[in-house]
Amino acid sequence: MSAPELRSVLVVGTGLIGASIGLALRGRGVEVYLRDASADALAQAVARGAGLPDGERGDVDLAVAAVPPGQAVGVVAALLDEPGVGAVTDVTSVKAPLAAGLADHPGRARCVGGHPMAGREVSGPGAAHHDLFRGRPWVITPLDPVASAAEATRPTELVTQLALLVGAMPVRMTPEQHDAAVAVVSHAPHLVSALVAGRLREASGHEVRLAGGGVRDITRVAASDPAMWREILSANALAVRGVLADVRADLDAAIAALEAPGTPDLDRVEALLHAGVAGRGRLPGKHGSGHEDFVGVPVELADRPGQLAGLFSDVGEVGVNVEDVRIEHVPGEPVGLVELSVRPQARDVLVDGLRGRGWTVLEG
Amino acid sequence: MSAPELRSVLVVGTGLIGASIGLALRGRGVEVYLRDASADALAQAVARGAGLPDGERGDVDLAVAAVPPGQAVGVVAALLDEPGVGAVTDVTSVKAPLAAGLADHPGRARCVGGHPMAGREVSGPGAAHHDLFRGRPWVITPLDPVASAAEATRPTELVTQLALLVGAMPVRMTPEQHDAAVAVVSHAPHLVSALVAGRLREASGHEVRLAGGGVRDITRVAASDPAMWREILSANALAVRGVLADVRADLDAAIAALEAPGTPDLDRVEALLHAGVAGRGRLPGKHGSGHEDFVGVPVELADRPGQLAGLFSDVGEVGVNVEDVRIEHVPGEPVGLVELSVRPQARDVLVDGLRGRGWTVLEG
Repeated sequence: MSAPELRSVLVVGTGLIGASIGLALRGRGVEVYLRDASADALAQAVARGAGLPDGERGDVDLAVAAVPPGQAVGVVAALLDEPGVGAVTDVTSVKAPLAAGLADHPGRARCVGGHPMAGREVSGPGAAHHDLFRGRPWVITPLDPVASAAEATRPTELVTQLALLVGAMPVRMTPEQHDAAVAVVSHAPHLVSALVAGRLREASGHEVRLAGGGVRDITRVAASDPAMWREILSANALAVRGVLADVRADLDAAIAALEAPGTPDLDRVEALLHAGVAGRGRLPGKHGSGHEDFVGVPVELADRPGQLAGLFSDVGEVGVNVEDVRIEHVPGEPVGLVELSVRPQARDVLVDGLRGRGWTVLEG
Repeated sequence: MSAPELRSVLVVGTGLIGASIGLALRGRGVEVYLRDASADALAQAVARGAGLPDGERGDVDLAVAAVPPGQAVGVVAALLDEPGVGAVTDVTSVKAPLAAGLADHPGRARCVGGHPMAGREVSGPGAAHHDLFRGRPWVITPLDPVASAAEATRPTELVTQLALLVGAMPVRMTPEQHDAAVAVVSHAPHLVSALVAGRLREASGHEVRLAGGGVRDITRVAASDPAMWREILSANALAVRGVLADVRADLDAAIAALEAPGTPDLDRVEALLHAGVAGRGRLPGKHGSGHEDFVGVPVELADRPGQLAGLFSDVGEVGVNVEDVRIEHVPGEPVGLVELSVRPQARDVLVDGLRGRGWTVLEG
């Protein structure tokens, strides 16, 4: 069976995700039509080149409901009933509710759930980006993987093709597998991050002054929109509370170990820390690509302008791809230390090349 | 009373912190002598220019015990007994044990605790950096702030001067205030990060494949050395378990809300998320400087070499200080999106300048 060709797509909802899908698909020659309840958002997305207004469309191979979780079931159901629409998918971050919500819909075999694991900290069509999905997982959850395998094949193939066209990595799962996975790698960690951040609310001014990069990283996602996360956590409550219960059991053990009479039970504490090292080590390379980790090459910069440009110019001459950059310095002052992340096999070439060009490279 | 002049310092322990202190002080014209139980570490630190070997020293104004927490009390006590040593300080991350350990030492008025809030993910003299402390808090904890105020003034002034000379921000606290502060902004968050990471150990391969930037940030510090953190958590057990008990109470509330019969108690969940937003908002600017936060300016890069160098060259022409850089892209491929962090008042100048030079700047 050859894959069907994805030639035309209707995107309903032109926020960050919807507009980015449009930008990416048009870059690959797919016809894209856009619809949004907000005329402003639609106009912005059209102006950015994400697609044509919906009024001009003919039949489409696939419709994507790129709307918030609370609206997804209703929009998908309406799209299944709409003439001239082939398959339908969505982009929400919890998948079981879609399967449950469409249980009695006669067109459900034409629907496949989807979850592109990508985003930015800002929303709206102005933040959209044609590369948003590149290298990220795009989970595809057929609603009835067994009963309607034959019928569901074409929609699944179309969504798979959509994911590939925008540069994502399609990952097939059941809705339940997906929801359990995001509970442990995203939803429960998010809530715990919020709880740690909540402790800072009552801390005194001299206490938060001592905060450093560690707590800043741990609590970064806690700044996200509570209204959106309320929806996500509610939709995935069962799986999330299972993970949270396991975290609580470990937290109880940690507190008990630190309370042990006389001297704390250091072996128990250290065992929990070792479990953390092991768990952290299971995370794939940056952006979930499954690639190897990178190594850091720290370079000292002098306190004068133009150093960053000069550094990247020399990095370019050396011919090494920089995977990430981190600047460690005092806000408002010229740069002190820059850490370049590169693939392990590129490290020595970069270090030698930079030292040969006069840069001070520290041990990383 | 004028501040005493810090002219000569003995640094005992030439790891990352000790060697960085040496490098920074020598850059400011202070005589630095180094001592380390490891002849290799000492030779490396001397070779890097962090100071002269201890054997050549005369009297020193101040000795710094830059040794691990478990050795600090013993090394400080010995330094107080050593001829030709003025004041003595340490650099450990929990301060009450030093005060307790020296309770009966006759020279304790010459000792002041210290905690430079800086570090890198690597250790040893090869990782040392003269700018390591710039802009970071350096907590100074006089042991007897009331009883021996007069006697302790000179040591406190010397350590304050040390902090200022290396570019840090001296912050005076009691040992108990310090330990409570680091429990809430560092030690308890670290342990919770390890517990979240520990959940990933049992996750399946297809689950961890879906991990993204959120859980990666939340668990970054969980990769740290368990043996070192065992010491830290043990030394600060009382304060840490107090914070952990508060986290557990919130976790219980979250689990109960998600388990509420029928539908989850969404208002309770959202209240916890809002508390997280508020707590996160209390963190000072990057590196604890207390400065305002920065805004991100996302710039699209084309898939060809030299784009980063060209971008920073243009940033330099525009004349704006870049405070941080984040690259969002697929590992191993040319860059897709770069986020430049700048001060809010510099944003418009940078955006206009870059757009005028042909760059695509997204809404940030």
